[in-house]
Amino acid sequence: MSYQVNALEILAENFRRLPGIGAKSAQRLAFHVLNMPNEQAQAFAEAIINAKNQIHRCPECCNLTDSEKCTVCGDAKRDRSVICVVSAPSDVIAIEKTAGFNGLYHVLHGVISPLDNIGPAELCIKELVQRLGNDEVKEVILATSPTVEGDTTALYIAKLIKPLGVAVTRLAYGIPVGSDLEYADELTLSKAIENRREV
Amino acid sequence: MSYQVNALEILAENFRRLPGIGAKSAQRLAFHVLNMPNEQAQAFAEAIINAKNQIHRCPECCNLTDSEKCTVCGDAKRDRSVICVVSAPSDVIAIEKTAGFNGLYHVLHGVISPLDNIGPAELCIKELVQRLGNDEVKEVILATSPTVEGDTTALYIAKLIKPLGVAVTRLAYGIPVGSDLEYADELTLSKAIENRREV
Repeated sequence: MSYQVNALEILAENFRRLPGIGAKSAQRLAFHVLNMPNEQAQAFAEAIINAKNQIHRCPECCNLTDSEKCTVCGDAKRDRSVICVVSAPSDVIAIEKTAGFNGLYHVLHGVISPLDNIGPAELCIKELVQRLGNDEVKEVILATSPTVEGDTTALYIAKLIKPLGVAVTRLAYGIPVGSDLEYADELTLSKAIENRREV
Repeated sequence: MSYQVNALEILAENFRRLPGIGAKSAQRLAFHVLNMPNEQAQAFAEAIINAKNQIHRCPECCNLTDSEKCTVCGDAKRDRSVICVVSAPSDVIAIEKTAGFNGLYHVLHGVISPLDNIGPAELCIKELVQRLGNDEVKEVILATSPTVEGDTTALYIAKLIKPLGVAVTRLAYGIPVGSDLEYADELTLSKAIENRREV
């Protein structure tokens, strides 16, 4: 901005750093915050702080949670013999929306991507291997996105855990290749879970 | 979201309330905040609180400021004989960017819009009339957007202040009619200031 209202510029700059928000939108959002009732702005600021402070990884599945265990791991009705491995917490939300899966999840928090210096050690893969130590788990569904990095990650995990004697499956093709799992429509995703195939 | 991470849902809900942000974008922004460094999230929250607490209206021109007077009113180099009347603080930013205007501003904080129950009393019009009390001001430029409401507001103010003996001008047509002043390109806006005409 070309005239100095520091507090406003700082707020706009903070919005501009968010993904998909340019300078004009950031300015518009900053003005919108200024016109909010005080309580609402306060609630917004608190929501940011609380999300950062309260949310941590579930000790079992590495998904995000604000209680001791995530709601899926804590739910006694879920089928503990199947684990669906995804790359991000948003993928869990996408799959839960299909209501077509009743097992547990495991969140890797990324995919293997040598160009970005992300190797297997940066992902929650060892936590997955630990979970397979007991005999309860019969099947692992690899539900990474069907991209080069997603496929590489799935292949790496398949090779690693097949010797442990669990069935390893991959989501059926049906998801448009090259797209992001998070944005697949619910029907496609539901079909993909139904038609998963052994690696 | 279909699984419960309260702190995350509350944050996403706060983003969703902002203009132009839907459910998917809100979720994406919430996850982005979770992946931010702690200091950056803290700074974001503080920016919201500070903007709400520190920013108030300039006692002279009603523009937003976080110091006693806004930077334009406090600048001794500005031409105090011309006042440019705009409807919103974002319009001041747009005009300042053209670098084609060296006078002062007056921000109305809205336009007359009977359908939204906004009459002249809701706008900072009496503050404008007070500023015209001394003989310093020679010209008032009415720079409201060329929409029905903007034109009505300009006409209302013109009728009100013409008897006070100041020249009243309106931005030249050149701004695409029906559009918003905030989004006019700088050249068009610059031309419009140059070609302003007496009402």
